[in-house]
Amino acid sequence: MAGIVFINCFEVPVGRDEAFLELWGQIDDFMCAQPGFQWRRLHRSLDSRVKLRYVNVAGWDSAADSDKAHGEEFRRMQSQPGWLEFPAQPALYSVERDDRA
Amino acid sequence: MAGIVFINCFEVPVGRDEAFLELWGQIDDFMCAQPGFQWRRLHRSLDSRVKLRYVNVAGWDSAADSDKAHGEEFRRMQSQPGWLEFPAQPALYSVERDDRA
Repeated sequence: MAGIVFINCFEVPVGRDEAFLELWGQIDDFMCAQPGFQWRRLHRSLDSRVKLRYVNVAGWDSAADSDKAHGEEFRRMQSQPGWLEFPAQPALYSVERDDRA
Repeated sequence: MAGIVFINCFEVPVGRDEAFLELWGQIDDFMCAQPGFQWRRLHRSLDSRVKLRYVNVAGWDSAADSDKAHGEEFRRMQSQPGWLEFPAQPALYSVERDDRA
């Protein structure tokens, strides 16, 4: 679990899950094949009334690897007009606390 | 990694990390000791200018266990006036996609 964590929180209107997953899947396929990618989990809220209905959490070897992956090809995919419907809050994080029961 | 995931995104003003971690730690100590708690990771943004500066991601055996843990004692701690400074967006999530490189 060493490295850095990229977290992206998405607002997805109820009933638009399929359109979101189609767009997200395009970028995800690309990201999973980039150098430094470790793992990712896409989370979907149980309650459809919450604001942040999807949260993607992904491990990378380093911030530099994640930054490099979010380059020209990423920006091309992310600039598709369909994304305007799904506001996102992406950021890189370090793991501050990590415990198991 | 079976079960359910509780994610809470926090807004924490720059320079108020210590006060946040003090309050968060009180609730975290309690949560980590509750039945059904599996694991949790607290993430802190590398860039202090992002809105969601802290993201807590925690695994629970079930939604019922998480709900039960967020009962009276949780509400007592969470109602402390200090929390007004740190808006939070908590929700329960299922894992929709899970892959490793």
